[in-house]
Amino acid sequence: MIVEKLIQGKVYKFGDNINSDIIIAGRYLIYIEPDKLAQHAFEMLGDGFASKLRQFDILVAGRNFGCGSAREQAVTAIMGLGIKAVVAVSFARTFYRNAINSGLPIVECPELVAATAEGDEIQIDLGAGEIQHRDVKYHFPKFPDSMRRLLEVGGLAEYLRSASAKSE
Amino acid sequence: MIVEKLIQGKVYKFGDNINSDIIIAGRYLIYIEPDKLAQHAFEMLGDGFASKLRQFDILVAGRNFGCGSAREQAVTAIMGLGIKAVVAVSFARTFYRNAINSGLPIVECPELVAATAEGDEIQIDLGAGEIQHRDVKYHFPKFPDSMRRLLEVGGLAEYLRSASAKSE
Repeated sequence: MIVEKLIQGKVYKFGDNINSDIIIAGRYLIYIEPDKLAQHAFEMLGDGFASKLRQFDILVAGRNFGCGSAREQAVTAIMGLGIKAVVAVSFARTFYRNAINSGLPIVECPELVAATAEGDEIQIDLGAGEIQHRDVKYHFPKFPDSMRRLLEVGGLAEYLRSASAKSE
Repeated sequence: MIVEKLIQGKVYKFGDNINSDIIIAGRYLIYIEPDKLAQHAFEMLGDGFASKLRQFDILVAGRNFGCGSAREQAVTAIMGLGIKAVVAVSFARTFYRNAINSGLPIVECPELVAATAEGDEIQIDLGAGEIQHRDVKYHFPKFPDSMRRLLEVGGLAEYLRSASAKSE
């Protein structure tokens, strides 16, 4: 998945402390495929929860999203659901880094989180460091160029692949 | 709330390991009123999650429901949502005891959990130790008389109140 510079869509809103166990239960860590992981994503929260989330494009959450045990599959499962970005008040460090490595754009923007509700439409401009919601633009610190390049090519693996291809 | 002997209604289904933080976040433990707690119950899971659960009567869940930090308010919050009973594969000990003390019927019945999906109708007969789902009756160990009396009068506080009134 190559990340678009403008990410637009409908918001599903979580609260604080959504941990990696909630995102994908430990017993599914035998999988690495986005489709397979997405089938079981957020399963703890009810039978139809994954299907429900597929109707949304962007997750918006409170503090400490992705806390708990570090697992790359939490990011992969979210991407497998078709989620294009996560905006939160804050992220757990390991989730943050896993997201960048996998090419999932994540943005810390407490003001946007406070302003949005389920179903709202937002538009994230990664290049400009802005999120548009109704008539208001919210700002977030722009990613360093190195991280933006990772996101643009679709994550660390793709980045290394293209870098090694160039050097050959 | 006095517990009816027959508890009937529509099922919302959770997976494994729904912990007490998910049920009611720590910052709301300053409250003890069922209504107030219910407003914030399951808030972590999305803006409208508590309202959604109010459309259901009985929670059905996997293993270890109510695990995590022991807090009476987790039971109170669930009761405040109008939930009449919880059926799970298993419960955390402290949740189990808090539920009985507060007068919330809880039943361990793995076969019923495996058989049900969101929206199904079930009927729990606490006295007989049976749950009806479609054409099938599932059995669970009947509560000891002492626990059934607690549930019937609406929990431990009511029980002690009525016992002390009788002895006066």
